[in-house]
Amino acid sequence: MVYQKNFFFETRGRGTYEITREINQVILEAGVERGICQVFIHHSSASLTLCENADASVRGDLERFMARLVPDGDPMFSHTLEGPDDMAAHVRAILTKMDLSIPVTNGRGALGTWQGIYLWEHRTRPHRRQLSVTVIGD
Amino acid sequence: MVYQKNFFFETRGRGTYEITREINQVILEAGVERGICQVFIHHSSASLTLCENADASVRGDLERFMARLVPDGDPMFSHTLEGPDDMAAHVRAILTKMDLSIPVTNGRGALGTWQGIYLWEHRTRPHRRQLSVTVIGD
Amino acid sequence: MVYQKNFFFETRGRGTYEITREINQVILEAGVERGICQVFIHHSSASLTLCENADASVRGDLERFMARLVPDGDPMFSHTLEGPDDMAAHVRAILTKMDLSIPVTNGRGALGTWQGIYLWEHRTRPHRRQLSVTVIGD
Repeated sequence: MVYQKNFFFETRGRGTYEITREINQVILEAGVERGICQVFIHHSSASLTLCENADASVRGDLERFMARLVPDGDPMFSHTLEGPDDMAAHVRAILTKMDLSIPVTNGRGALGTWQGIYLWEHRTRPHRRQLSVTVIGD
Repeated sequence: MVYQKNFFFETRGRGTYEITREINQVILEAGVERGICQVFIHHSSASLTLCENADASVRGDLERFMARLVPDGDPMFSHTLEGPDDMAAHVRAILTKMDLSIPVTNGRGALGTWQGIYLWEHRTRPHRRQLSVTVIGD
Repeated sequence: MVYQKNFFFETRGRGTYEITREINQVILEAGVERGICQVFIHHSSASLTLCENADASVRGDLERFMARLVPDGDPMFSHTLEGPDDMAAHVRAILTKMDLSIPVTNGRGALGTWQGIYLWEHRTRPHRRQLSVTVIGD
C-alpha cells in the first residue's frame, strides 16, 4: 500500500516548527498498519529534524549552536545574493537534511516519547514550504 | 512484503556500538530479497551512523572531533537539567541523525566493504535504547 | 513494486558531482508512479546530499565551509594511514550521510525547483564509487 500527500507550511522565519501532528494525520489517512513514513521538504534552505519535544530550551540552544557553527554573513561565503542568511541557510539545511523517515507501527508514527518532528526554517524571513509525505506498508 | 522488529540495546555510555549483525539478522528473518531496510532509534540523545568498521582509531577520532564540535557543558547551553552532557547529546544526535536506510540486495543488507552500522550513544552514562527495524521489499 | 539498480560513478577527486539525471533515469526504468526512491553510496569517505543546483558558488562555499569545519591533517586525528584527507573524509561523510531518500510522484523524482542530488567525494584523489538506487511504490 502506498499513500502520498503534499502540503504547504507557512513559516514565520528562522526557527523550528513542530509538524508531528500533521505527519501523524497523513499516516492515519494512509491506513497503513506497519511500514515506513518518509517526509521530504522540497527546498534547499529549510530542513527536517527529530528533536526533543518537551523542553523548549532545547530548541533555543539548538538555534544558538547553529548560529555559531554556521554564522550569517560569514566572510567566507560568496553566495550572498539574497542576503547574509542565504548561504548560511543552505549549509544548515545540508547539515540537518531535507529527508526524514520514521517507522509506522500499529497505524501510527512510532516516535520515541521525547521525539517530535520539526520543520527547521533557516531563512530569517517567512517562507511557504512544500512538504511530501509518503507512507508505504501493509 | 513488510517486516518490522523492535529491539533494545544496552549501551555502556558514550561511544559507538556496532549493530550490523543485529540489523542483518532482522533482514534474514524478514525473508525480503530486494528492497529497503530502515533503522530507527526512538531517542533524542543517541543516533545511528554508518562508519568505517576496520580500524577502531576512526571511531576514536570521530568521538574526539565531536567533543570539540559540540562540547559538554558549553556555557551557551541553557538546557542543562540532566548534566553537562544533556544538551550536547541532543545536538550530536541531530547532527548525526536518528534514522538510517540501507538497501537490501540478495536477502542481505548491501553495505560497502568498509561500512558498519553503529548506534552512537551521546550520553555519558549507560542507557537502554529502543530501535525499530523495518524491511520492505519483495 | 520494487526496482533496484547498482551503478558506478568515477569522481575526479574532492568535490560535488550532480547525479540527478542518473537517479531520475533509474526511476523512469522502475516504472513506479508513486513511492520512495532510496539512494545509497557504499563507501565511508564519500556521501550524498541535496543541494541548491542553480548557482555553482553554493557548492564552492560549501566546500570551503567543510574545509574549515573538518580540516585535512587535523593534529587531533590519529587515523592518517592514507594521508591527511583520510580521517577528514570519514568525518565529512558521517556529517553529510551516505543514504538519501526522495519521494516519487507521477513517475519522477519529486525534487524541489532548486534541489539537485549530489555525490560528494571527500577524498582528494579520484575514486570509483558504487551506488545503489532502490525504488519502491505502485
